[in-house]
This record gives sequence, structure tokens and C-alpha cells, in this order.
Amino acid sequence: MMTVQLEGPRAGEVLIEVKATGICHTDDFTLSGADPEGLFPAILGHEGAGIVVDVGPGVTSVKKGDHVIPLYTPECRACPSCLSRKTNLCTAIRATQGQGVMPDGTSRFSIGKDKIHHYMGCSTFANFTVLPEIAVAKVNPDAPFDKICYIGCGVTTGIGAVINTAKVEMGSTAVVFGLGGIGLNVIQGLRLAGADMIIGVDLNNDKKVWGEKFGMTHFVNPTEIDGDIVAYLVNMTKRGADQIGGADYTFDCTGNTKVMRQALEASHRGWGKSVVIGVAGAGQEIATRPFQLVTGRQWMGTAFGGARGRTDVPKIVDWYMEGKIEIDPMITHTLPLDEINRGFELMHSGTSIRSVVIY
Amino acid sequence: MMTVQLEGPRAGEVLIEVKATGICHTDDFTLSGADPEGLFPAILGHEGAGIVVDVGPGVTSVKKGDHVIPLYTPECRACPSCLSRKTNLCTAIRATQGQGVMPDGTSRFSIGKDKIHHYMGCSTFANFTVLPEIAVAKVNPDAPFDKICYIGCGVTTGIGAVINTAKVEMGSTAVVFGLGGIGLNVIQGLRLAGADMIIGVDLNNDKKVWGEKFGMTHFVNPTEIDGDIVAYLVNMTKRGADQIGGADYTFDCTGNTKVMRQALEASHRGWGKSVVIGVAGAGQEIATRPFQLVTGRQWMGTAFGGARGRTDVPKIVDWYMEGKIEIDPMITHTLPLDEINRGFELMHSGTSIRSVVIY
Repeated sequence: MMTVQLEGPRAGEVLIEVKATGICHTDDFTLSGADPEGLFPAILGHEGAGIVVDVGPGVTSVKKGDHVIPLYTPECRACPSCLSRKTNLCTAIRATQGQGVMPDGTSRFSIGKDKIHHYMGCSTFANFTVLPEIAVAKVNPDAPFDKICYIGCGVTTGIGAVINTAKVEMGSTAVVFGLGGIGLNVIQGLRLAGADMIIGVDLNNDKKVWGEKFGMTHFVNPTEIDGDIVAYLVNMTKRGADQIGGADYTFDCTGNTKVMRQALEASHRGWGKSVVIGVAGAGQEIATRPFQLVTGRQWMGTAFGGARGRTDVPKIVDWYMEGKIEIDPMITHTLPLDEINRGFELMHSGTSIRSVVIY
Repeated sequence: MMTVQLEGPRAGEVLIEVKATGICHTDDFTLSGADPEGLFPAILGHEGAGIVVDVGPGVTSVKKGDHVIPLYTPECRACPSCLSRKTNLCTAIRATQGQGVMPDGTSRFSIGKDKIHHYMGCSTFANFTVLPEIAVAKVNPDAPFDKICYIGCGVTTGIGAVINTAKVEMGSTAVVFGLGGIGLNVIQGLRLAGADMIIGVDLNNDKKVWGEKFGMTHFVNPTEIDGDIVAYLVNMTKRGADQIGGADYTFDCTGNTKVMRQALEASHRGWGKSVVIGVAGAGQEIATRPFQLVTGRQWMGTAFGGARGRTDVPKIVDWYMEGKIEIDPMITHTLPLDEINRGFELMHSGTSIRSVVIY
């Protein structure tokens, strides 16, 4: 921990007191130096929840005292992407966010004369942070910060991939590769969408009980089967008069490009949709025979679960408050800020599903 | 030409007098020996039109004298795929069709004691052929055989890729890679769907006038531009306040896996859909960085343009008769059966768009 100067909000900006933040693999990826777009020095963290403590001129959609979730994918409702009705990838502040600065091109964080970068437009590993108004979602003030911070990334990414991107229907069959924090949220998204057969795939048998907690109906450990995992899954999902196997929907939550291919190829001929959620290492590529696509499989991806932050995130908070979705069991560890590095260790060792820092 | 014995139709089968047949690259691919699933000896040809001359027991949907188009993708309306509402890839006779035989496991073609295989369930390079009832589309009897035979493959594949697979909307931008017989039909499908900007890409400048005939608005020869074709196309399609380029829809009609990648990457961030139509060589693979998918591009493919043969092919014949689509200018050469090999030569030299054999 160290003390950093933070300027107040300028026009169109909001000052937030961060009350809780999750620790996500993406923070770890950037911290490791492997992210080619990582900028340093920076204040990391992108999965937070807090309270508005000040607003700059012209801010109308939130006010002091509102409870909010910072959005690394903003929603301006005015750019071509927001108006397209086809994507959540708002472009209003894309360039400056990538450069680690606010939309006016400057940073609010500094130590003395040295500028500190913002990170993913959020920087939630700090007691206070400044965000553009279009990058905060106003949520139910009764919701507990230490749980709903997870909606700022993992929960929305997993559930949104099912609902917004794949658009899974009742009675579907699905395979989820990788039962970490994202995979478990994909599983509960599938349960929510009414999928019949929800197969979880993980190398770690400890994940079986975790998957089952959120709706997984079958578990496969690829190291414990005979032969190829794709053939195994296709066989497992055979149904109907023609006995053609393959899942209606498959999801990669591993970031492993080989697994992404398996996910595509384990989807059903004619209509299988395979969604890439995991982030691959720099320069890695996915591959398959084009015949897989020509015979009707679709390969797609999702960022922030296809969710429009200001529109959809408050709904997901409501779903949590109404008991439609679960978050509490996934928050396996809570830590004070000075133990944040232990959170990364718990992630590395596979001990945690999600660690949350409480300020 | 040679004389082959043909048995009459058995139960659920139809005997057809073939009146015209197109010569397609797929016939050429199989003839060349490069198709790993090719079976010999066989009677090739899959893009035909003709008249029902006899029907076997139990046939109810067509009768003697009906004009029909043979379907290499049948439509049984009873298998899980037909009932899925999600795909045209009927599975009713998939296994036997792949083995070059009728659904009962036997061939109707022979020379003496030697069996001759059926090809793609059609075998239209013959005066007469036998097909399952579910593999013939009954069409308007006023339509000319020498034009509508092309609806049996190329026309439907190209137009269907736009309408059924990509589901292109009014005002879209699109790029079509490869302006052969399929590419030109994609172009006229895009015109039909109301696309605003229809960019054709081909190495052969002679194809510019061809593309323009069917609605292409811009032509690019990749060998005549500076730098990378993807960057060039992205720049060309920049629009809207955020000036993000990329086409709403892209189509590969080349079968070249490198071009397939370019097509995906030239599609728009957030919502670009790229459709693989071309057939790649055996064992070849497509590749890209998964980031392309995570940022909202979708990679898909199409077979027979996603068209349900018995339902959609008669409609496309009607569109032709009503002047909604053009076919006549694409039929650059008509030949008698004994000159069929000249049709393959015209294809190889790039002289023809489509050659049609008239019986």
C-alpha cells in the first residue's frame, strides 16, 4: 500500500469511494507483464463496487451517495456501437481508456510529479477512483458491496455469455470448459436459461462439487477418459433419431487455444455455437478445419458477457437480490487491502474461486 | 459418353429425365481425385433440372410430368435437423448418400455386373437418374431447365448464404472474396437484401465488370493495392462517428484458407459476421487470434446456402421467373453432353462463369 494523489472529477466524471473489489485473472495477467498492452505504473483492479462521493460538472445520471459498479466496458448510448443494437463494445472512450488516461487525455492519479495510469478505465485497487459518468452503473443501494463487486466482471461475463452472446434456450445441452470463476458463472447462467444437460470439463476433480453447486449435471476430467475429449463429449451428447452428438452450446473459459478448438468441435453439426470467453496468451492462435463451420458450427466470442453496463449490470444486481443467481459461495476469501497479494497467491494455487478485497 | 444400366425407382424413389445440368467446381474437385471422400466409379453431376418420368411405391409429393430440381441436401421434414428450425442439413439419408448409394444401400446404376456409385445423391451427368423423393424439389413448369439447373447449387448457395446464413439487412456493407459463380450469386443476394456497399475482391480484373452486372459497388484487386488487404478493406469501410472500419458481412467464395482469415478479420468489430462458402483442400485449416472473436466477430459457414431444398428452391425458381434475380448472364456456355469435358476446360481457364450441359 502506498499513498497516491487523486484529483477530483472533471466535467462528465465521477469520484467513487471503492468499498470492495474482486481480484481477477486479468489483473494478474497485466501484473505479470505478459499483457502487451499493459501500461506502468498503473493502479490495477477492475471488478469493484462503491459509492459516489462527488460528481463533476454536467453529470446527470448519478449523484453523491449513489451505489455504483465501475464499468470497464462503458455504455455511452450515443456511439455507433451503442446504437447498433448488435454489440456492447461502446467506442466512446476506447482510445483514451487503452492509453490509461481519462477521456480528456490526462490521468487523475499521480505521485508527486509522476503520472500513474488508470487501468481498464476502473483502477479499483484504491480507496478512491475517478471514472467517466458513462462508465458507472447505478445499482440497488441495499446490495452488499463485497458480493456485487463480482458483478463488475466475472458474474456478468459468465452469465452474459449464456444469455446475451449464445442466447441459450430452454432444454439445450451445453459444455463448459474450465470451472474457475467464469466457468461457474456460465454454469449458473445455463441453469437460469433452462439448459437440460450442463457438462463441466476440468482437469481438477475438486471442481466437480463446485460445478454441481451451480447447476452442472455432468463432470468430465479429460485426463480420466479413454481417447479424445471431443469424441467423448460428442458421444455423451448423442440424442434424437439420428444419434448425432455435439452440444448445442459450448464455452471456453480456459484461455487455452487448444481447448477453444475442442469446444468448437464438440458443438453440434448444423447449429452448434461455441463461445470463446477465456483470454489467450499474446500471439496465440485458434485453428480448425473450415469444414467445421461449413457444416453449421459458429465460432464467436464475448467480452463482458455482451452486457451493456449501465443497462444490464443493475438488472444482474437485482437478480442477485431476488435470489435468481448466487454469488456468496463463490467469494471464497475476503481480505483487507494490505493482504491483496495473498489474493493473487490464492488464485495461483487454485485455492480460491474469487478473493475480494474489502476497504 | 457411355451406356449405363439404370434400374427403375424403388419405394420412395423417383426416376428423373435430366434435361440440363451445370458443371460445378465440386464435380471437378471429385473428378481430380483430391476429394478424400470421392468414390469411383461414379456418375458425377449435382446441379440439374429435369422431369419426373416414373415414381416408386409410396411417393406422394411428386408425380410423373412434374418439373424438379435434384437436391444434394435433401429435406425429409422429419429428422432432428429438419425439425430443429436451425439448420438445413437434413440427416435422413446422410450415411448412404456419403457411400454413393440409395437409402436402401444399393445403387441403381450399373454396367453389366459392376455397380456404379451415385454422386452427392444426384448424378446429373446422365440422361436419367434416380433420387429419393425427399431429394427432389418440385418447381414451376414454365421455368427453363437450362437456367434453373443452376439453382440446384450455385445460385442457391450464393443467395442463400446472404439470406439464410448471414441474414444480411438493408443498408449493410459487405465484402465478397472471389467473383466466380458463387461470388456473383452472393453479390446478387446482397443486392436483393438491400446492402449499400458491396465490395468485390478478386485477383482477376476481368471480374470487375461481372461483379458490377449483379450489384457490386466497389472492386478491389489485392495485387494492385499498397499493403495488406485487410487494412485496406477496413479503411475503405470506415464510417460513423467513431470511424471504425470493417464490413458488416464478409463472404469467402475462394476455398483458400488464407482468404478465409482475411474475410474474418475484415469484418466489423462488435458484430461482423464472416461466412465460409468455399471448400478448402483436404486437411487445410483456418486460423486467427481469438481476440478477433472476443471483440465480436462471428465465424460461420454455409452449405447449400442454408436452404431447405424442397421449401426454398421452388421459391428461388419463382424469384427467377419474376425477374427478382438473374441467371441468364451467368450461363456463359451451353454444351451438348458429348462436349462436357470442354466445360471443365472452360472452368479451368477461367473463361466461363457457368457451363451448362443440355441433353
